[in-house]
Amino acid sequence: MSSHPNRQIILVARPNGDPKPSDFEIVERPAPVAGAGQVLVRNTLVSLDPFNRILMGNANSDQAPIELGDTMFGFTVGIIEHSNNAAFSVGDHVTGFLGTTGWQDFAVSDGSDLRIVDPAIVPLSSYLGTLGVTGLTAWVGLTKILDPKPGGTLLVTAAAGAVGSAAAQIGKLRGYRVVGVAGGPEKTRHLIDDLGLDAAADYKADDFEAQLARAVPEGIDTIYENVGASQFPILLPHVNIGAQIAVGGVMSQITTTDGLAGPNRLPEVLRAIFYKDLTVRGFNVTKFYEFYPEFLADVTPAVAEKKILSTTHFIDGLENIPSAFPEMFTGRGAGKMIAKIA
Amino acid sequence: MSSHPNRQIILVARPNGDPKPSDFEIVERPAPVAGAGQVLVRNTLVSLDPFNRILMGNANSDQAPIELGDTMFGFTVGIIEHSNNAAFSVGDHVTGFLGTTGWQDFAVSDGSDLRIVDPAIVPLSSYLGTLGVTGLTAWVGLTKILDPKPGGTLLVTAAAGAVGSAAAQIGKLRGYRVVGVAGGPEKTRHLIDDLGLDAAADYKADDFEAQLARAVPEGIDTIYENVGASQFPILLPHVNIGAQIAVGGVMSQITTTDGLAGPNRLPEVLRAIFYKDLTVRGFNVTKFYEFYPEFLADVTPAVAEKKILSTTHFIDGLENIPSAFPEMFTGRGAGKMIAKIA
Repeated sequence: MSSHPNRQIILVARPNGDPKPSDFEIVERPAPVAGAGQVLVRNTLVSLDPFNRILMGNANSDQAPIELGDTMFGFTVGIIEHSNNAAFSVGDHVTGFLGTTGWQDFAVSDGSDLRIVDPAIVPLSSYLGTLGVTGLTAWVGLTKILDPKPGGTLLVTAAAGAVGSAAAQIGKLRGYRVVGVAGGPEKTRHLIDDLGLDAAADYKADDFEAQLARAVPEGIDTIYENVGASQFPILLPHVNIGAQIAVGGVMSQITTTDGLAGPNRLPEVLRAIFYKDLTVRGFNVTKFYEFYPEFLADVTPAVAEKKILSTTHFIDGLENIPSAFPEMFTGRGAGKMIAKIA
Repeated sequence: MSSHPNRQIILVARPNGDPKPSDFEIVERPAPVAGAGQVLVRNTLVSLDPFNRILMGNANSDQAPIELGDTMFGFTVGIIEHSNNAAFSVGDHVTGFLGTTGWQDFAVSDGSDLRIVDPAIVPLSSYLGTLGVTGLTAWVGLTKILDPKPGGTLLVTAAAGAVGSAAAQIGKLRGYRVVGVAGGPEKTRHLIDDLGLDAAADYKADDFEAQLARAVPEGIDTIYENVGASQFPILLPHVNIGAQIAVGGVMSQITTTDGLAGPNRLPEVLRAIFYKDLTVRGFNVTKFYEFYPEFLADVTPAVAEKKILSTTHFIDGLENIPSAFPEMFTGRGAGKMIAKIA
């Protein structure tokens, strides 16, 4: 049985708009004890995701937020410290893939929210990124939501982000011509030179629309959409008849408090949906966890062979999560954000 | 061979916004002559549809408009006056279901755009309404675009209109609880008392949102959308997780020239698509003509037994089409608009 202290990041305030370090507090409590059939997990890596912002509340979402005072929910990688469950041995590496292991040093579990993972195949951080819920989200969008037309043009928004870069690279492997949209010349260069995309457009550039037109000379057949309203209407004139659009995120809308500003872009979007026979489908990856084994079988070899790369932005120490997490929403970071806490 | 004069309504100006009588001109030319394998059709009924406005140009559509000086394209019912085609006999009633028979007294055809229809089963005007492209549009939306969940709540916008009332009544027959949205107390009364819908809400009423909330106590599972941006965002708070939305028209956007006015409703719509796992599908009925026989087999008995009713607004005489057609866009009419021209 463990008598370690357990540091927990708890929610103490609901942000309006972007989250702030002061929305969190770190408390220290005795580590929990594994009961019958349970294991004690010591978290080593904590995944920081846009979904965590939604759970903080005031996020324009129907998703119920966590309570003030509760430990932040989140995906982790950890190691089994103590086991009363025959399926797990001390020293096993596991992912807490339902988020219940959370932003803390220790968690107990009956094992139903844990998967044993092998650091000999890919680095453990990959089980939070390209082989975690991040990669699963991208893969579900491309394989379960969209009706793929390999050979056509797939456009991915926020393509330098964690989910976007996974979607773009999985799209390449599935046979699409892939075009990425990202902010700034360094990110668009990365998409082409490092990730091997076919073209890219910089939404922060003055000539974004011209860059986009050059990037999709035969139009867009499929969109993997991560961003929300800010770029969507600009893409539509380039969308081909019958195109399919998966909405796997609305990053730009999660923290927006002034969503009603600017001209009304809804009429032109509905017109495009009607006149161009578009299908637009939103999806919540948590309803597709049953496909996790199929996803891993499909994508693990490509990650192991480095055909799918990811940029990971590591944070050092649980104590630095409150100051690092808000940076995800200011666009400064790129790629997957993971805190090393052990 | 015929030597009748052929009155034709030609397009002489492209409207900005609502069409005007002066956009049309009536010319008189010699009737065409049926060649080898062709028939001569004398039109008796002409269907006036929102699609005609799109064909006039300046309609925010990718659909190519007709040329200035060309005869207006449109659906008709007619009678065979002369036949050089063994599939048709003089006196047969036919529908010109591709629109090629047009706004004129006479047309020649090789028969590929004609279907023989039987006035003993339903009135001939029904072949332009509930059993015409109007009804086909509603039926395609409900059977080929939506993945129906019978027993749930179907909401139909513009439910007193030609397509909307067909969608609402076909929805009832398919087992939905059906709620109609229409403008004004007379139309909402008609939806409930005459068409047998379960509830209705008046979008012109000050308490529209309260009426809507009362009409859908268990939320909305399916929307048959005809209108466009003006009502769409108001519906979304009542939409259930996983709901499906067919966009079969954007009536309010066809003639709108100030579409960018007002607050930007796109962010909240994309958020709802993502957070509520919505599927939004636009469709163009012209791509579903292959299902016409299946549609007729499915719906004809219900129309013949008066389980599907329609309100028809008859115009007397081809010469009155130019002044009557614009009224479709001012919301004064309700139901299907048909001109008797013989």
